Amino acid sequence: MSTAAATTPQHLVLTLSCPDRPGIVHAVTGALARRGGNITESNQFGDSETGLFFMRVSVLTKVPRTELEADLAELATSYDMSWSLDEADRPMRTLLMVSKEGHCLSDLLFRASNQGLPIQVVGVVGNHEDLRPVAEFYGATFHHVPVTKDTKEAAEQQLLELVDALGVELVVLARYMQILSPALCERLRGSVINIHHSFLPSFKGAKPYHQAHERGVKLIGATAHYVTADLDEGPIIEQDVTRATHADSALQLQRKGQDVERRVLAQAVKWHAEHRVLLNGQRTVVFA
Amino acid sequence: MSTAAATTPQHLVLTLSCPDRPGIVHAVTGALARRGGNITESNQFGDSETGLFFMRVSVLTKVPRTELEADLAELATSYDMSWSLDEADRPMRTLLMVSKEGHCLSDLLFRASNQGLPIQVVGVVGNHEDLRPVAEFYGATFHHVPVTKDTKEAAEQQLLELVDALGVELVVLARYMQILSPALCERLRGSVINIHHSFLPSFKGAKPYHQAHERGVKLIGATAHYVTADLDEGPIIEQDVTRATHADSALQLQRKGQDVERRVLAQAVKWHAEHRVLLNGQRTVVFA
Amino acid sequence: MSTAAATTPQHLVLTLSCPDRPGIVHAVTGALARRGGNITESNQFGDSETGLFFMRVSVLTKVPRTELEADLAELATSYDMSWSLDEADRPMRTLLMVSKEGHCLSDLLFRASNQGLPIQVVGVVGNHEDLRPVAEFYGATFHHVPVTKDTKEAAEQQLLELVDALGVELVVLARYMQILSPALCERLRGSVINIHHSFLPSFKGAKPYHQAHERGVKLIGATAHYVTADLDEGPIIEQDVTRATHADSALQLQRKGQDVERRVLAQAVKWHAEHRVLLNGQRTVVFA
Amino acid sequence: MSTAAATTPQHLVLTLSCPDRPGIVHAVTGALARRGGNITESNQFGDSETGLFFMRVSVLTKVPRTELEADLAELATSYDMSWSLDEADRPMRTLLMVSKEGHCLSDLLFRASNQGLPIQVVGVVGNHEDLRPVAEFYGATFHHVPVTKDTKEAAEQQLLELVDALGVELVVLARYMQILSPALCERLRGSVINIHHSFLPSFKGAKPYHQAHERGVKLIGATAHYVTADLDEGPIIEQDVTRATHADSALQLQRKGQDVERRVLAQAVKWHAEHRVLLNGQRTVVFA
Repeated sequence: MSTAAATTPQHLVLTLSCPDRPGIVHAVTGALARRGGNITESNQFGDSETGLFFMRVSVLTKVPRTELEADLAELATSYDMSWSLDEADRPMRTLLMVSKEGHCLSDLLFRASNQGLPIQVVGVVGNHEDLRPVAEFYGATFHHVPVTKDTKEAAEQQLLELVDALGVELVVLARYMQILSPALCERLRGSVINIHHSFLPSFKGAKPYHQAHERGVKLIGATAHYVTADLDEGPIIEQDVTRATHADSALQLQRKGQDVERRVLAQAVKWHAEHRVLLNGQRTVVFA
Repeated sequence: MSTAAATTPQHLVLTLSCPDRPGIVHAVTGALARRGGNITESNQFGDSETGLFFMRVSVLTKVPRTELEADLAELATSYDMSWSLDEADRPMRTLLMVSKEGHCLSDLLFRASNQGLPIQVVGVVGNHEDLRPVAEFYGATFHHVPVTKDTKEAAEQQLLELVDALGVELVVLARYMQILSPALCERLRGSVINIHHSFLPSFKGAKPYHQAHERGVKLIGATAHYVTADLDEGPIIEQDVTRATHADSALQLQRKGQDVERRVLAQAVKWHAEHRVLLNGQRTVVFA
Repeated sequence: MSTAAATTPQHLVLTLSCPDRPGIVHAVTGALARRGGNITESNQFGDSETGLFFMRVSVLTKVPRTELEADLAELATSYDMSWSLDEADRPMRTLLMVSKEGHCLSDLLFRASNQGLPIQVVGVVGNHEDLRPVAEFYGATFHHVPVTKDTKEAAEQQLLELVDALGVELVVLARYMQILSPALCERLRGSVINIHHSFLPSFKGAKPYHQAHERGVKLIGATAHYVTADLDEGPIIEQDVTRATHADSALQLQRKGQDVERRVLAQAVKWHAEHRVLLNGQRTVVFA
Repeated sequence: MSTAAATTPQHLVLTLSCPDRPGIVHAVTGALARRGGNITESNQFGDSETGLFFMRVSVLTKVPRTELEADLAELATSYDMSWSLDEADRPMRTLLMVSKEGHCLSDLLFRASNQGLPIQVVGVVGNHEDLRPVAEFYGATFHHVPVTKDTKEAAEQQLLELVDALGVELVVLARYMQILSPALCERLRGSVINIHHSFLPSFKGAKPYHQAHERGVKLIGATAHYVTADLDEGPIIEQDVTRATHADSALQLQRKGQDVERRVLAQAVKWHAEHRVLLNGQRTVVFA
């Protein structure tokens, strides 16, 4: 974006979290008001258990972002804030990672192209070649990075290089059937979203639809969460379920579940890309 | 509430709406901050179509409400605000109106007694005697106010006297099968909630479950809305649906629907009593 | 019911399960057709994994039930069937067991009295006195059977005597906060329904809403299941969920969850009382 | 399919409807049993209002379909049945019709290719060229058939020729923004499925999302129905909804709604292709 004085108003979105205390909202909105910013949407949440305060503000302003950033940096020091300021609706630079199942990938690519999902797909990484055609159909560059036990470290290195080279802000594991190393999880903390094909914490680990079928559950679900070194335990962003019956085989559960997976993942990616998800320890605050 | 200086902090909830312009949030939060108020939850919404701004703030403060009110009154003049300030969790003085079907009444009475629904049921008015026992079981005074074509005016007069005498803030038509006169609707505007037994605007008017059965719909619903002189057209607060099948008779649709009715009405009453519903012309803003 | 020749047709419901093989439906419907029975609703399911076949038939017939029973007994021997024949809509003799929380109890009593839930509440057992008033308001006899570590065996003995004396067909644990002994579970196998306040298999055991709050889930649920000696592992009859947010405390999750609990339990009890639930090992077949 | 004696068992699905009377199920299952057929799934429904009986049976048999058909034809005469017998899982020959919006088309093509949706897409007809690429990506032939007021009759003629030439069994209007003539509706009665972008009967006609936004509804929905000459009044197959809020613009409602549209349409197409939907006057029986 330009740092020169903006002549037409632009929409910015500010998110922040800090230890809770009186006056935060007043101070923040003061910084915005002094620059002529008009708040169009805002949410705040104070967590009485952790003592943390969370805020998301959309503001319409004619002032260059850099000037606001200077003001906010000062404020951030006083209030011990984590914060970010971004253009609203700027597509987030996103890398999609896949294996063989294409339902999440096709869905995300379609939404990014046609339905205003605010991501720019800067690349698709697959450990198999299967999904190259659909990636390329939507104009995304496909990188084949096979992974075996022996090449896993090299493959992760290659991934990190792509992340750097492409300026990736968000990595989405769109049914990527490999487990990331703890080091990689730590390195990309808060910027990798995974879709788990069960309603966590039910049915962690492998073959959740088979587990669900065995147990005879009447609903099956999916969970989008940030990836952490602790498998299937990362902060949950979104979950949803669909109805199952005694007549559903494990395969039918899987097909029903794929609908939920792609819907839940797309919702989580949308909220993340709109800066609506803030980390609160092992949980998330979602200003939906 | 006491107007003396509070020694322990209390929770207040402020709601307001006004023409949108820069600085509103800063001004309001400034008024709160100057009195040492700490914001625990807040939502704002600017409607770009109507040009109106809506805000709800929960604040923890040791300052007496009256002092804050004075500050806010001043602000309200500058910004042309409609506003209210209330103790959070203060049970709203509520009059329930019923006919013969008890599912909504029983539910609201149970929730008020056992599940923290923040209403104080100051009376139950029935145009039939059928629901006196359940009202009295929950300790509510039952008023039998029969309505015929000839007595309708007198009945409404009696209702208004009850509203005044009991200090009623909210009237809930909990399956009350009478239509209020336009004059009464106008008089109580914004403080009467009705539950309509269909997913409006589908199936307005009488016997919606029979209409739904005839049409062969696959979902049936219910709608809680503010009552206006324009029947079934008032601002919608909440709606929900449940699944129907070809095997459901009109009676079975009705029974399934009653579950939705009571759930939707209870949700709408809860949000209203928590000052989460603001009027935006013929629509509502709900800070859920 | 009368065993004399019926002069007006009555509705019967037949359920059966047996090893799958060709000709079952033909044989069963033949037995019904020879007696002039007209099938009004029917469902069949063959489980290719267990090799079992399940069937539920509603039939309108003028023939006395006893005559049909004789025919069916013969058939059952040939096909190695488990089966039952009952009058449709006959209220099932039901004992409700409770502790202090009344949301499920109130709901079941209301539905049995007003909404056609086909159970006859022959008694309410509470290990506390708290819910005596609501039981008695709905005309049910309340039995106070306190349970301590020392008296548990005697209490279960008392329960079994009630079950015998009252001709109880179904026991519903409507938020009964005691664990039944393995011996009792075995004795009443298939006729005790419990409501667990989580979406099993998530959050087994104690304080599921606290567990859910800790984990930061975005949906909370409830599970109705048959009670077995293996705690929280019995065959699931019904499950449902409702949406939760970061702003919900454990207490608010609990209140939201109570709505799901009572809805799920009522649904499970209704299906069971209508003979729509058949056991298939550790799972259920539900002909909803 | 081959009419020679089958050596391995095949799955057939029989659907029928007829005036209700005793003995139907017995007669039908007898015809199947005499040929050694094993019923794997079955549903029946008697509509007490219309006096019609509906049945769907899945049967595993080694007998050629033609022999069963001869038996059934005889039965059909006695019982005045409408019926069909088909191979289970045989992909139904389907023509998709579209305009410019691709969410339903992409979804159906993906499901047919990857998720077992039992249709064979024999062609895609578009009145605009926009969706040619995605059709061709999935290997479907795209026919551009523009429609203006003057060419409408010719365009419908061209459509009918395609239907004949391609052996089309099902036509799906996947957001096809043209109204079919009454004559065409009549000609293809029961084999054209449309997706309407509202929860019918709410918001019939044009721009339903704008209507929904105006009315301030809290849920928006979609309806899949058979096309009849009476616009938006055809028998409903499936409906679903999603939550909306005050903050949703008409455009956002539309995007949320597109998710519901594609899900509802795919479900309806699946049920139709699996012979699970039977016509019951202006309503449907769905053996889901």
